[in-house]
Amino acid sequence: MSIRYEDVLSARERIDKYIYHTPLDKSIYLSNEDTNVFLKLECQQGMKCAKLRGALSKLTSLTKEEIERGIVAVSSGNHGSAVSYATNLLGIKNVTIFVPATTPRSKVEKIKYYGANVVGVGENYDEAHEIGLERIKDSGSIFIDPCSDPIVLAGQGTIALEIFDQHPEIDTILVPIGGGGILTGISVAAKHINPNVKVIGLQTAACPAMVQSLKDKVFYEMFPTEPSICDALVGGVGEIPYNMADKCIDDIWVIEEEDIASAVSFLAKKEKVISEPAGAIGVAAVRKNTPLLKGKNVAVVITGGNIDENIMVSLLNQY
Amino acid sequence: MSIRYEDVLSARERIDKYIYHTPLDKSIYLSNEDTNVFLKLECQQGMKCAKLRGALSKLTSLTKEEIERGIVAVSSGNHGSAVSYATNLLGIKNVTIFVPATTPRSKVEKIKYYGANVVGVGENYDEAHEIGLERIKDSGSIFIDPCSDPIVLAGQGTIALEIFDQHPEIDTILVPIGGGGILTGISVAAKHINPNVKVIGLQTAACPAMVQSLKDKVFYEMFPTEPSICDALVGGVGEIPYNMADKCIDDIWVIEEEDIASAVSFLAKKEKVISEPAGAIGVAAVRKNTPLLKGKNVAVVITGGNIDENIMVSLLNQY
Repeated sequence: MSIRYEDVLSARERIDKYIYHTPLDKSIYLSNEDTNVFLKLECQQGMKCAKLRGALSKLTSLTKEEIERGIVAVSSGNHGSAVSYATNLLGIKNVTIFVPATTPRSKVEKIKYYGANVVGVGENYDEAHEIGLERIKDSGSIFIDPCSDPIVLAGQGTIALEIFDQHPEIDTILVPIGGGGILTGISVAAKHINPNVKVIGLQTAACPAMVQSLKDKVFYEMFPTEPSICDALVGGVGEIPYNMADKCIDDIWVIEEEDIASAVSFLAKKEKVISEPAGAIGVAAVRKNTPLLKGKNVAVVITGGNIDENIMVSLLNQY
Repeated sequence: MSIRYEDVLSARERIDKYIYHTPLDKSIYLSNEDTNVFLKLECQQGMKCAKLRGALSKLTSLTKEEIERGIVAVSSGNHGSAVSYATNLLGIKNVTIFVPATTPRSKVEKIKYYGANVVGVGENYDEAHEIGLERIKDSGSIFIDPCSDPIVLAGQGTIALEIFDQHPEIDTILVPIGGGGILTGISVAAKHINPNVKVIGLQTAACPAMVQSLKDKVFYEMFPTEPSICDALVGGVGEIPYNMADKCIDDIWVIEEEDIASAVSFLAKKEKVISEPAGAIGVAAVRKNTPLLKGKNVAVVITGGNIDENIMVSLLNQY
C-alpha cells in the first residue's frame, strides 16, 4: 500500500471545510541572515493536533453503509480525541475508542466529551490494540488506523499543500516521526509539488525506531523505549511509512530529550506557542543544527499542543 | 465619524488574503449544560494580535500617492508592531513608529525587524503621541490611528464576519475595551448580521475609562490608571468608540486584575492558549459571571498573545 499526490488533493477537497488553515509564522528568533525558519502551527489545529486531518480524511471517505457499521480507534492520545471530535463534527454515532485501562481520567473525559464510547483494556497501547481489534473482528466496524491507512495519511498530507500555498519558497520540511504517518503524507505531497524539497524526519533519542528499522531493514511494528516526555513519538513504526521511507525521508535526525524539553519552553516564552514535547522536536532540531540548514527556507511542523499542564509549568521553570 | 457594515465587508475583501482565519474553538471547561462558550483566538493572528486587521485595512485602502508620503503610527505595543509587520507584508517603505523613549529594547527590536524606523520620544504614550504628531504635521505622512479611524475599525470588524461564518448561532460577544476600536468594529458587523446579538465590553478595574466616559457623558481621551497587567487596556477611550457606544455596547463589565491574571493561567493550562492579560479578560468575565450568560452561545474574543515571558511564568506559578 502507498499513497499518491491525487489522494492528498482528494482528501483536501473532503476535509477543507472542517479544518483550520493553521498559521505558517516566520520565527524571528530561529531565523538568521542565512536561514529562514517558519513554524507550521498544527498545534493550533482543531483539538490542538494535526491528526484531526487524517481522522477527517478517513471518516469523510466512508459510505453511509460503512458508517452504520460503527467506527473504532485505539488511542488515549491525539488520535483518539481527534477521531471522537471528528465524528462529532460529522454527526457520526456509534464510535468506540479503546484506550489502555491505565489512561488518566482527564484524557478519557476529553474523548468522551465528543460522544465516543471509551473502553479501557490492557495495560498499554499494544495490549489495548490487540484486545480492541480482537473484540471488533467479527463486527464489521471500521477501524481508523493512524499510520497504516493510506486515506488517513493523505489527510496528513494536506499540511504540505497548505505550507506551499502559504510560502511557495519552502525547500526543507522538518517533521516528527512517531509511527511516521504525518511525515509520509506530507512528503508525498511536498515532493510532488517540488521534487527538490528535503523532508527530514525527527525522532527522540529515547525511541529511534525508524532509524533502527531502516538500518536493520526490518519493519519494527513495536520498539522498546526509554523514558520520554514525547508520548506521541514512542513505539514502533507504521507499515506504510516504513515501506515508503526510501522515497519520503531524506534524512532522520535524532534529538535528545533535554533539547526537546528546552524547545517547549522556548516556544512558549519567545514564540507564544504552546506545543506538546513531541510537537516541539523540530524546534529543538533547528536550535541544535542550524548550520545544516544554511541557505534554506525551512518549515517546521509543530504537530500538537496537548501538553500536560504540570509538565508545561515544570519545563517553563526549568528552561 | 462612524462606520457601517459595508465598510467592514470592503475591509474583508482587501485584507482576507493577508490574515489568518483564526480558530473559534469551543471551550469544554467554560461551557456547561446551559451555556456554550467559544474562544475566538485572535491571539493566534499574525503578529499574535487582532490589531493586524485594522492596520492592514487602512494600509490597503491608501493610494500609491498616499503611501509615498510615508506611514506613521504611535505605539510601542501591538498596534506598532502590527503596522510594521503589515507594511512589510505589503512592501511599503518609509514607515515610522513613534514609541515612548522608555520602551524596552525587545519591543523596539521587534518593531524594527519588519523594517519600520522606530523613534523614541517622550516619557509615555500620551507624550509620544503629542510629539510624534507635531513632528509629522507638515509632512503629509499618513497617520494610522487605532481607535479614531473608521477604516481601521472596519478592519477589526472582520472578526465578527468570521465568527458568524464559523458559528452562526452566536448570540453574545465579549470584547475587551481599551480605546474601544476592536469592540466597535465587531459590534457594527455583528449587529447588522443579527440585530439581537448582545455585545458586552470588558474593562479592567484599574482603568474603567469607557464606563466613566459614558456615565459622565464626557469623552475622556486620557484617563488615569492604577497599576495594571493589561497594557492594552489602560488610557482613555477612542473618539469613534465613544460616539458610537449607544449603538454598539450593550453592557460593560468591569473585571478585577486578579481575575484577569488567573484567566491567563487558566487559558495556558487548560486551553493550551497563550494570551496576553488584556486578551484574557473575556475568559475572566465568563468565569465570574457565567450565570448572566445562561442559555447563551457566547464568543469570547481573545485579542492578543504578546505577553512578557516573565509575567507569564509568574502567573502560571501563581494561579
